[in-house]
Amino acid sequence: MADIGPEEILARFEELSVLESEIEQAELEIIRTQYTLHAPIYKKRAAVIAKIPHFWALVFEQSPPEVDTYIQPSDSKVFAECLESLDVTRFEIDDPKGSPKSFALRFTFAPNDYFEDSVLEKKFYYRRSLDGFDGFVSEPVKIHWKKGKDLSDGLTDAAYKLWQAQQKLGNGDNRAAEKRLPEYKSLAKKMESDVGVSTSFFTIFGFVSSFRYVSAEESQKARKIEKENSEKRRRGEKVEDEGPNDDDEDYQETEVFPGGDEPAMLIAEDMWPAAIRYFSKSPSTALYTRERQANPIGGAFQRFPLMTCFHPS
Amino acid sequence: MADIGPEEILARFEELSVLESEIEQAELEIIRTQYTLHAPIYKKRAAVIAKIPHFWALVFEQSPPEVDTYIQPSDSKVFAECLESLDVTRFEIDDPKGSPKSFALRFTFAPNDYFEDSVLEKKFYYRRSLDGFDGFVSEPVKIHWKKGKDLSDGLTDAAYKLWQAQQKLGNGDNRAAEKRLPEYKSLAKKMESDVGVSTSFFTIFGFVSSFRYVSAEESQKARKIEKENSEKRRRGEKVEDEGPNDDDEDYQETEVFPGGDEPAMLIAEDMWPAAIRYFSKSPSTALYTRERQANPIGGAFQRFPLMTCFHPS
Repeated sequence: MADIGPEEILARFEELSVLESEIEQAELEIIRTQYTLHAPIYKKRAAVIAKIPHFWALVFEQSPPEVDTYIQPSDSKVFAECLESLDVTRFEIDDPKGSPKSFALRFTFAPNDYFEDSVLEKKFYYRRSLDGFDGFVSEPVKIHWKKGKDLSDGLTDAAYKLWQAQQKLGNGDNRAAEKRLPEYKSLAKKMESDVGVSTSFFTIFGFVSSFRYVSAEESQKARKIEKENSEKRRRGEKVEDEGPNDDDEDYQETEVFPGGDEPAMLIAEDMWPAAIRYFSKSPSTALYTRERQANPIGGAFQRFPLMTCFHPS
Repeated sequence: MADIGPEEILARFEELSVLESEIEQAELEIIRTQYTLHAPIYKKRAAVIAKIPHFWALVFEQSPPEVDTYIQPSDSKVFAECLESLDVTRFEIDDPKGSPKSFALRFTFAPNDYFEDSVLEKKFYYRRSLDGFDGFVSEPVKIHWKKGKDLSDGLTDAAYKLWQAQQKLGNGDNRAAEKRLPEYKSLAKKMESDVGVSTSFFTIFGFVSSFRYVSAEESQKARKIEKENSEKRRRGEKVEDEGPNDDDEDYQETEVFPGGDEPAMLIAEDMWPAAIRYFSKSPSTALYTRERQANPIGGAFQRFPLMTCFHPS
């Protein structure tokens, strides 16, 4: 095992690449199977949850630390007052041009004092860039904040405006032009002065990427190349290495929710599927369960402060 | 939605319980499908990996923080010198009395200066206790350390000896007798004086539970009761709540690797399946890949310190 020549090591590396893409395909197949198998159960669950007041607010109250760290007290208040449902969909599950890993978080809200929207949906696209990035990108979602109620302190609006301005520039390598946009400059400046300020969870709706935005077209092209390389490796042919990533650090200058795909994934892959377990862990639920002989339901629920600010829908 | 009576809330809670067990069943089914679908690929992978020196040492070098925190420099040295393979099996995948979630980590080592064993296998049983614990338990594995080479500083031996003494006590509620065992007292004392000392990763072979040990018999009984309750709920009958957990904190007095199931799960569910990705992230691999035109393989590999201490098998 120690005596191995450079040519042989190279051959082993090519074999590993082939296996890696087989494993990737098998993983995608599992995501598809799981989604199909679980969909009817989650549909039934949604119907039951809809009849339990504050279900999702109580789940978010029990968030794992990686999500909880992004939820400010004012966000919890919004969840408690008006979050009606959360749904997770894999909207590209059967789309050969997309990825089964892509997912959307769809929040439904009762009428409230904060924003006009009754649905806020954030899509995370699993894409591949031509320079080797594999991960989630997203398009900023506009939240129609009511006057003086913007919990993101202007960040979701700024991200959305920059996005629109970038779209007007059109395709191609317009990075230099992007950086000259007034929307770019003002957001970058705001981000710089905001360093260290805790931002609202709702800012996640402005998230773009932990790398840079990758279009559907670029991703399809990159996957086609990857597939061709993978075929070549399978046939034992040599494949040119992908170049190293560009220095894309400056894209994070205008990222309003750096690393936003991480908590989003945790919500989609842990909190949402395991929501009943999170709900059961809630002190309110436990309080209710333990004391239900002694107290009417209203008693237990109302004693918990979260419960006092709910607007019936 | 806000106007909901106590009886209705109760009914909704029962419905959630039924759904929770349906989701659990669907999850187990996915684990089975995944295992079957992936097994042949991982078998091929093992054959390729066996020809790449230090593959697993390089993977462990890239451990995520939750695992890395348990790996001391002396552990890395053992991995670099003699870890030959790592395999993960779900040994109860088709056992109706067991659980598809149970898994084993099987490490294979070249002859080395530290211990006599060529295989160290640690089994994590997914079990349920009669008082409501659901999680992993394990039996201490004896490591035959060579003289003066015990990286766990006596902890794996002490855990194994206590385990053997407990087995001799036989079944039944012998907790009081257990606590009177000299093996219990000496391990508890050692644990107390060891507080704050970093222990070797190899101590994980002495891990028992984050709760207390749960036997296969207790687990089968607990699952039978849970199944009956679940049937009752499905029929709309009321079910007695399980009692609250006993105060089992004192079991942690003799747990040599508290929370050991967490890094074990990460190894089984993340590092092992994604090993090729971890391997590719290694600086040694990158060094090799980038400089392969300029340097012979030996050059790049040997320049990396990890590579200097490998004993050919």
